[in-house]
Amino acid sequence: MTAAICFILGKLLSFRHTGRFKELYVREGFTAVALGWFVMSVFGAIPFVLTGEIPFYIDALFETISGFTTTGSSILSDVDALSYASLFWRSFTHWIGGMGVLVFLLSLLPLTGGSHVNLMKAESPGPQVDKLVPKVQSTAKILYGIYFALTVLEVVFLLLGGMPLFESMLTAFGTAGTGGFGFRNDSFARFSPYIQWVVTIFMILFGVNFNAYFLLLLRKFNRAISEEVRGYFVVIAAAIAVITANIYSLYNSFGEALRQAAFQVGSIITTTGFSSCDFDLWPTLSKEVLVVLMFIGACAGSTGGGIKVSRLLILGKTLGKELKQALHPQVVAPVRMDGKLLNHETIRTTNVFMGAYFFIFVVSFLLISLDGFDMVTNFTAIAATLNNIGPGLAQVGPMMNFGSFTNPAKLVMIFDMLAGRLEIFPMLVLFLPDTWRRF
Amino acid sequence: MTAAICFILGKLLSFRHTGRFKELYVREGFTAVALGWFVMSVFGAIPFVLTGEIPFYIDALFETISGFTTTGSSILSDVDALSYASLFWRSFTHWIGGMGVLVFLLSLLPLTGGSHVNLMKAESPGPQVDKLVPKVQSTAKILYGIYFALTVLEVVFLLLGGMPLFESMLTAFGTAGTGGFGFRNDSFARFSPYIQWVVTIFMILFGVNFNAYFLLLLRKFNRAISEEVRGYFVVIAAAIAVITANIYSLYNSFGEALRQAAFQVGSIITTTGFSSCDFDLWPTLSKEVLVVLMFIGACAGSTGGGIKVSRLLILGKTLGKELKQALHPQVVAPVRMDGKLLNHETIRTTNVFMGAYFFIFVVSFLLISLDGFDMVTNFTAIAATLNNIGPGLAQVGPMMNFGSFTNPAKLVMIFDMLAGRLEIFPMLVLFLPDTWRRF
Repeated sequence: MTAAICFILGKLLSFRHTGRFKELYVREGFTAVALGWFVMSVFGAIPFVLTGEIPFYIDALFETISGFTTTGSSILSDVDALSYASLFWRSFTHWIGGMGVLVFLLSLLPLTGGSHVNLMKAESPGPQVDKLVPKVQSTAKILYGIYFALTVLEVVFLLLGGMPLFESMLTAFGTAGTGGFGFRNDSFARFSPYIQWVVTIFMILFGVNFNAYFLLLLRKFNRAISEEVRGYFVVIAAAIAVITANIYSLYNSFGEALRQAAFQVGSIITTTGFSSCDFDLWPTLSKEVLVVLMFIGACAGSTGGGIKVSRLLILGKTLGKELKQALHPQVVAPVRMDGKLLNHETIRTTNVFMGAYFFIFVVSFLLISLDGFDMVTNFTAIAATLNNIGPGLAQVGPMMNFGSFTNPAKLVMIFDMLAGRLEIFPMLVLFLPDTWRRF
Repeated sequence: MTAAICFILGKLLSFRHTGRFKELYVREGFTAVALGWFVMSVFGAIPFVLTGEIPFYIDALFETISGFTTTGSSILSDVDALSYASLFWRSFTHWIGGMGVLVFLLSLLPLTGGSHVNLMKAESPGPQVDKLVPKVQSTAKILYGIYFALTVLEVVFLLLGGMPLFESMLTAFGTAGTGGFGFRNDSFARFSPYIQWVVTIFMILFGVNFNAYFLLLLRKFNRAISEEVRGYFVVIAAAIAVITANIYSLYNSFGEALRQAAFQVGSIITTTGFSSCDFDLWPTLSKEVLVVLMFIGACAGSTGGGIKVSRLLILGKTLGKELKQALHPQVVAPVRMDGKLLNHETIRTTNVFMGAYFFIFVVSFLLISLDGFDMVTNFTAIAATLNNIGPGLAQVGPMMNFGSFTNPAKLVMIFDMLAGRLEIFPMLVLFLPDTWRRF
């Protein structure tokens, strides 16, 4: 039924299409992506209401946007009770949203004109868009090829661990998109250590910049292991080490503590949001490390959310340079990444991104506090939605859900999830009066 | 005794002074200020240990640095029991630290050479240093003149309200330096509404950029009310309005709710840290507004701490410009403040400041969590020390103290207080190997 509605509406809307606007500039690209994601979610929510499994539309919209943006925050308290159809659609939204819907369309549709890079710019995570090959469409095809192959590979590994095909597919969708919707109330807590390790490793793999895989395929190993990828693995290793040491006494063996730490670190830094245990019960240090990982996020050009490792690297390098310059005003110290000079534009855009990010964070944090929850709940709820993670701590911890927030608070978080997935600028452009002016 | 120790050590150290290094460059200025503040605190802590009122040296150091940096976080649980001498010294450190120790020396000592602006740069809060008049020494004298006059004025107003001279002086020292050490265990909770209003107004006045007062004296009213000053008052008004509405039901009358809201907003945004009630008991929204104010801070060029209104204005304006530029790549939109173009250097330094600020915040937040307190305590303890405020929430709330932290955590916060007061760069320069290399 939903498909029928979409088909009819789509036909009606494209009826008067004259084909006059073939070129997409930044403004059109950003607006199209922001509106596209919103419209797609508005219709994507319909099945949940039709089946009656999520009776209130705003809840269904929250769940769908949480799916497409690969957040994985749920308003459902009993996931076990969902029908197979709803479970599949819920997880499939992650897989669609992970790589980008419009990038997907780009790879399929025979579009003409060279400005489609602006669509991709708006939808791809990270401070810069790398076209792997000169044509945008070919780049999109390569990215989706890698994405598809890795997903199939995970399904195979899960099947080998004795997981049924349906559950393997749901898990792989959630991992590939770094989404995080589970299909059991306690997420991955009751699965075997083998399954947990497979999921851990694939979560971490999907958080790597996809350019790295492309370069690996071309056998350019040195370029594949970029500074960002190295930074990403260093942060993961450090976080696992600290948490393992911190939670060691809670578990029966070193192996178990390591597994829980690795699963949770992989899940949070890649902004997937699966959980293998109730980490809200861990000591404060471990919880704070996870909160910090929520903000760091995965690599640019991966399916993960958050601020992204490359942005933090750019900030760190600029800081070092600035300090050096303060000491030796006569020396010019350029900022380099992977041996290449970072241009001024990238540095400035990164800084502005951070400013806008914190502004949205603070405003959202204040707005949802009207619901009267405690500060840790409010803080981690926004951290979890703006960074597209899923679970937070306290009232939105891994074994809790977002159902107890009021509708206004849910709308705030719906905005945050979209702003997080589209990396803020497309959402802000949507609110500028200039965007709607005719030229 | 402390004075004697300092005198003898000072004489010994200046014995071999050849007068060769008359010029202070950035490196020397920053290092001198960072070391100067540390050495001064090391000696300033001695009286507390000698009197036996703070038996452990590290606690005395924490208290002294908290004083000089105008933080006002205390490790003492019973302030009522302190001797008059200790109370006076504690509050007087605020007054000395507020305007800057080395700026004070500049105004008194007959120094030669024109590079002393680098000392002032390192010590004055804000992204830019304005020399009011061409000579640094004259600027320092004018600033101290205004500072002294406002302090005396506050003492007069407090005396009129029936407060004894000694207590009036302590209050004025704490307000002028935006410090926050009280002399009663419940800070200002038991004082009359008149006294509370006087303190509120003077806290807010000391958070204004001192250039504004200088320009008012010169009758340049338009220039005095700069964008920063306007922004500062807008934020204060908005915060008071929100909190008054939010806490209205807790108090007997609108007047009382307004007074409590105004006192606390003035105290936190200026980073003073006095309290007129236990705001840890307020609803979440009000507490979160206060937490946000902790980060905003006062105006540049005031005695207050925090990120500073002008930095946030610069960030906001850069963001707006960047968005405009994304939409119209062909239009050049310069960033202006008070009608003047903001140069590139200032924008970049502001961004780097923010980066370094959040880096220090996160590392400190993780380090002190080893003490095992809850996340709100850890978060607000670092917010309160890095922004030089004083009290936080939960275990470091207005009616609690910092005494229960372990020594390593106290050292982290000692670093944060100094980094906050000196605005990070001098402290970071101290840790660069380059700083200690001979040229």
